[in-house]
Amino acid sequence: MPIRKLTMIATAAALTAASLAYAGSHLTQTQQRAVDARQSQMQLNGFNIGALGAMVQERIPYDAEAAAAAAANLAALASIDQTRYWVEGTDSSVEGTRAKPEIWADMAGFTAANAALAEATTDLAAVAGDGLDAMKAAFGPVGKACAVCHEVYRVPNN
Amino acid sequence: MPIRKLTMIATAAALTAASLAYAGSHLTQTQQRAVDARQSQMQLNGFNIGALGAMVQERIPYDAEAAAAAAANLAALASIDQTRYWVEGTDSSVEGTRAKPEIWADMAGFTAANAALAEATTDLAAVAGDGLDAMKAAFGPVGKACAVCHEVYRVPNN
Repeated sequence: MPIRKLTMIATAAALTAASLAYAGSHLTQTQQRAVDARQSQMQLNGFNIGALGAMVQERIPYDAEAAAAAAANLAALASIDQTRYWVEGTDSSVEGTRAKPEIWADMAGFTAANAALAEATTDLAAVAGDGLDAMKAAFGPVGKACAVCHEVYRVPNN
Repeated sequence: MPIRKLTMIATAAALTAASLAYAGSHLTQTQQRAVDARQSQMQLNGFNIGALGAMVQERIPYDAEAAAAAAANLAALASIDQTRYWVEGTDSSVEGTRAKPEIWADMAGFTAANAALAEATTDLAAVAGDGLDAMKAAFGPVGKACAVCHEVYRVPNN
């Protein structure tokens, strides 16, 4: 088979693979960036919650400085404006996101859930460096804010 | 072949695949989480810088509210404590990160570069909603802070 024909086949195959990848995700660049951004934010939430949770459960020793830093990080993350995250067409009916359609159907409720997290993390940041008991007491509402929002607005991770 | 034997083979194959994946990354869970967290933060920086950059370059119309939100987001992100990001053994000698060894060799310089970004983003957030000219003027130092830090502390993306 001539080289040119092989090249054409290879190009066609590459284009088909690219089309399939696109068809598989069904997302525009704007949509994909929004999904990536909100998943990055959840990753950072988890990174900081994880450190605090380990102290709350006494799997690692309480460290006032580390606790205060993680709590301040959570409060900073919760303050981030999410307007550009919730682009139409990026709910769990497309691949790669567990965002329930309820987010778009009930944006007011979803916004309120985020505001509850912002309030709880701000309260936690105010006391996280004041000892394990103070931190534990303020950690509860943060965990609850996470759980309530995940329950209503996120598809479980099976 | 009996089912039990097939199951054992499948389990062995899965374990081998898991070991190879681990050997490929060379990272402990703590190291991997740190790399994921800092990459998430860079993703969010890019998401917000991208929106502002498009306005600065006039590829999209200036939008005071959107500009103010993106700038505030950048300032919030720059305020995040990065103590747990720079775990030993997570420089560009391992797969999946472009963090130069210079970060660890010159942590004071790196911290100062991050402080410069925090200052520039705070300045930008103060004026980003005050019109395109004001935003453009304050955007310059943010872009410079990004560029300087990438040049010195990050392997180029080839």
